[in-house]
Amino acid sequence: MPLDFQLLATDSSSAARRATLGTAHGRVETPAFMAVGTRASVTGLAPRELEETGCQVVLGNTYHLMLRPGVELFQRTGGLHNFMGWQKPILTDSGGYQIFSLAHDCVVSERGAFFKAYTSQQMEMLTPERSIEVQAALGSDMMMVLDVCAPSKADEPVIVAAMERTHRWALRSLEARRRLAETSGHDQSLFAIAQGALDLGLRRRSAEFLTAHAFDGFAIGGVAVGDSRAERDEVVRFTTEQLPVDKPRYLMGVGTPPDLLEAIWAGVDLFDCVIPTRLAQQGSAFTETGRVRLTRTRYFRSDEALDTSCSCSTCCCYSRSYLHHLFKANEPLGPRLLSHHNLHYYNTLLAQARVAIERGVYSSFAKNKLDQIDRHEDGELKPRSQALSTESSDAGL
Amino acid sequence: MPLDFQLLATDSSSAARRATLGTAHGRVETPAFMAVGTRASVTGLAPRELEETGCQVVLGNTYHLMLRPGVELFQRTGGLHNFMGWQKPILTDSGGYQIFSLAHDCVVSERGAFFKAYTSQQMEMLTPERSIEVQAALGSDMMMVLDVCAPSKADEPVIVAAMERTHRWALRSLEARRRLAETSGHDQSLFAIAQGALDLGLRRRSAEFLTAHAFDGFAIGGVAVGDSRAERDEVVRFTTEQLPVDKPRYLMGVGTPPDLLEAIWAGVDLFDCVIPTRLAQQGSAFTETGRVRLTRTRYFRSDEALDTSCSCSTCCCYSRSYLHHLFKANEPLGPRLLSHHNLHYYNTLLAQARVAIERGVYSSFAKNKLDQIDRHEDGELKPRSQALSTESSDAGL
Repeated sequence: MPLDFQLLATDSSSAARRATLGTAHGRVETPAFMAVGTRASVTGLAPRELEETGCQVVLGNTYHLMLRPGVELFQRTGGLHNFMGWQKPILTDSGGYQIFSLAHDCVVSERGAFFKAYTSQQMEMLTPERSIEVQAALGSDMMMVLDVCAPSKADEPVIVAAMERTHRWALRSLEARRRLAETSGHDQSLFAIAQGALDLGLRRRSAEFLTAHAFDGFAIGGVAVGDSRAERDEVVRFTTEQLPVDKPRYLMGVGTPPDLLEAIWAGVDLFDCVIPTRLAQQGSAFTETGRVRLTRTRYFRSDEALDTSCSCSTCCCYSRSYLHHLFKANEPLGPRLLSHHNLHYYNTLLAQARVAIERGVYSSFAKNKLDQIDRHEDGELKPRSQALSTESSDAGL
Repeated sequence: MPLDFQLLATDSSSAARRATLGTAHGRVETPAFMAVGTRASVTGLAPRELEETGCQVVLGNTYHLMLRPGVELFQRTGGLHNFMGWQKPILTDSGGYQIFSLAHDCVVSERGAFFKAYTSQQMEMLTPERSIEVQAALGSDMMMVLDVCAPSKADEPVIVAAMERTHRWALRSLEARRRLAETSGHDQSLFAIAQGALDLGLRRRSAEFLTAHAFDGFAIGGVAVGDSRAERDEVVRFTTEQLPVDKPRYLMGVGTPPDLLEAIWAGVDLFDCVIPTRLAQQGSAFTETGRVRLTRTRYFRSDEALDTSCSCSTCCCYSRSYLHHLFKANEPLGPRLLSHHNLHYYNTLLAQARVAIERGVYSSFAKNKLDQIDRHEDGELKPRSQALSTESSDAGL
C-alpha cells in the first residue's frame, strides 16, 4: 500500500512535528528511530526483543542483501519480513552509500555502479532500476532511490555533478517503481534523497527538483559523515524547510541523541544510525545521566542498574558490575544486553519527544534533554564544550 | 540447605533412575543436563531464554570466576545467582580441571596448586580449602571438591598418585565445608569426584574410599577427554555400580547425546558439557534427524525449520536458510539462536528419558534414539560406524 502520512500535531515553539506513517505492516509513530539491520539482523537481538525496545521500523540494506543471501532467495521466499521474522515496517536503503564507501574496484557511470562483490569476488552492477528491483524483492515498506554520495569537502563541480546524477537516478527509480507496480502489483513507497553537501544553494536546488515529482517521502543524504555538528545542523534545518509539509522527512545515518533532538526541532520525522548498536559493541551505553563506558574499572564494583530511570530488561535484571564483567570476559551477552538498552534509550527518547510535540512544549523538552546529556559523562559533571565531541555521527554500513 | 535427593523410579530394563534433587533454589528433575556458564554467562543467552530451553541448572566455574570478577565481589554482593540473574540451582566446578589443563606456570604440591592468573599475570593459589571458600562466596547449591586430573594414558604410578591426592583433598574439602558451615552458616552440598583413569581396579578403590565419607553426591571425573567411547562407557558403567543408590551421580564434562543416553542407562543423574553451545558457535545443530551443519551450502535455500519436531523459539520463528545466512554474514544472532536450540534439544532429550524411566521402558527408548541419531547426518542416511565419530566428548572449560 502507498504510504499513509498523517500529520497529527506541529509544535508551537519549533518546526517539530508529530505524525503517523501507515504501511502494509502497521503504523509508525513519528518522529521515529529505525534500528539498523543491515544484513537482516540487528546485532544479536531477536525480533521480539526489538519490539521490547520500542523499535517500530527495521532498516535493511540493498547492497549487502543483494550480495548475501542474494535477490533470488527473497524473490522465492517472499521478502525480508518473513526471512528475518520481523512483521513490522521495514525500510530498505538503496545501496548508494555503500557503493561509494565500501565497494571495491567500483566504476560509476551514468548507467549505474559496477563493482566487485566482497562475497564472490565477481563483478556486480547496481543501477537505479536494479536497486528498485532488489528492494521490491525484499518487500520493504519504504524504498530509497539509488543516490550518488560525494564527499562533503569535494570541489563544487564534483558535488554538483553528484547531485544532478542523483536527480536523474531518482527519476529513473520512480519510473522503475511505476513499471514494477504495473507488472507485478508491487506498491512500495519510494523516498527521494536530497544531496548538495554543505552548500545551501545546492541543497535548495536539490529539494526543489525532487519535490516536483511524486515521491512518497524525502530524505536528506550526505550529512552523516565528517562534518561538524554546527554544519550538519545548518544543512538539516535549511533543507527541511525546503521539503513539503505533507510528506515524511528522513535524515539518513544520523546520529547521536543531541543530533536527533536538533533534527526533530527542525521538523525531521525519521532517523537511522548505527551509533546505539555500534557503541554497545564497544561497551558504551546511553543513560539519563550521560554516557557510561562499562569497560571502565570504576564499574567493577557498581551494584546499581545501568540506568535507574530505565525500564528495559537490561536495566531491570543486571548490575553495572555484571555488564562490566561480561565485557571484560568477552561474553557475547554483553554487547547484546547493551544493544537492547541503547535502542530502548533511543526509542524512549523519541517517544518522549512525540509527547512533548503533542503538548506543544518540544523546545523546552529538547533544551532540558540537551543540558542533561551535556552535563554528565560517566557520572561526572563536565564542561559543555566537551559534550559528546567524540561521537561524530556515523552512517549506517 | 543440604541436598534433598529423592529416588522416584528405577527403570526395569536398565540401571537408569528417575529422581529429584531439592536445593535452596528449587528442585531439579533428574536425569538432568546442566548448561555450562563458565564465566557467569551461557553463550549469549539471558536467563529467561535458558529457562525456555528447559534448563534446570547452570554450572559456574571456580577457576575462572575467582580470577574474574574475583571472590571479593561475590562476598560483597551475595553470590552468583544475583550477579547473573539466574534464580534456579547452580553447581560450581572446583577449578581442578582448569588448573591441570589451562593454567600457566602451574606448580602442584600436596597443599594445592600455585599458578599464574591469565587475568593479572600474578601468582594465585588454589587449595581444596580455598576452592570451598570461593564456592561458598559464589553461593552455589552444589559444590565440587578440588581434584587432581591425571591424563588417562599416564603411567599407573602417576594415576594412582593423582587419585590418592584427590582423596586427601576431598577430605580436606569436607572439613573446610564443615568449618564454614559452623562459622558462617553456609550449608551448600558437596560432591566428591572419583578418579582412576581407565583402570577399573583404581575406579573401585576411589569409589570405595569416597563413599565412606559424608559427601552429598559423587561425580565421575577424568573420563571426558581423549578416551574412546567404548572405554568411557565401560568406566562409567563400572564406576556407577560402585556408587550408593541414595546419592546423586554426576558424570563430569560428558558429552554427546549418545554419551548421555549410555550414561543414563548406567544410572547417572547429572551431566554438563560444552558440546551443545560450542557446536552452536560453529553452526552445528542437533535435530531429531541428526546433526545439521548450517554453514553448508545445501541450506542456503532451505525454507524449512531447523527441526520440524522441535518447539523451541529458534525452530518456531526461523528457516534453515536464515540461520545459514546469519552464519555466513557472521551475525551474532546465529550462534545465539543455535545455542538456544541445542540446549533445548539436550533438555528435551533428558525430559523424554525421564518419562521413559518412569514408564520402565528406558532401554527401548535409548536404543530407538541411538538408532535415530546414528541413521542421519545432514539429512542423509549414513553407516552406523561413522556415527558421531568426530564428536569426542569434550570437557567444560
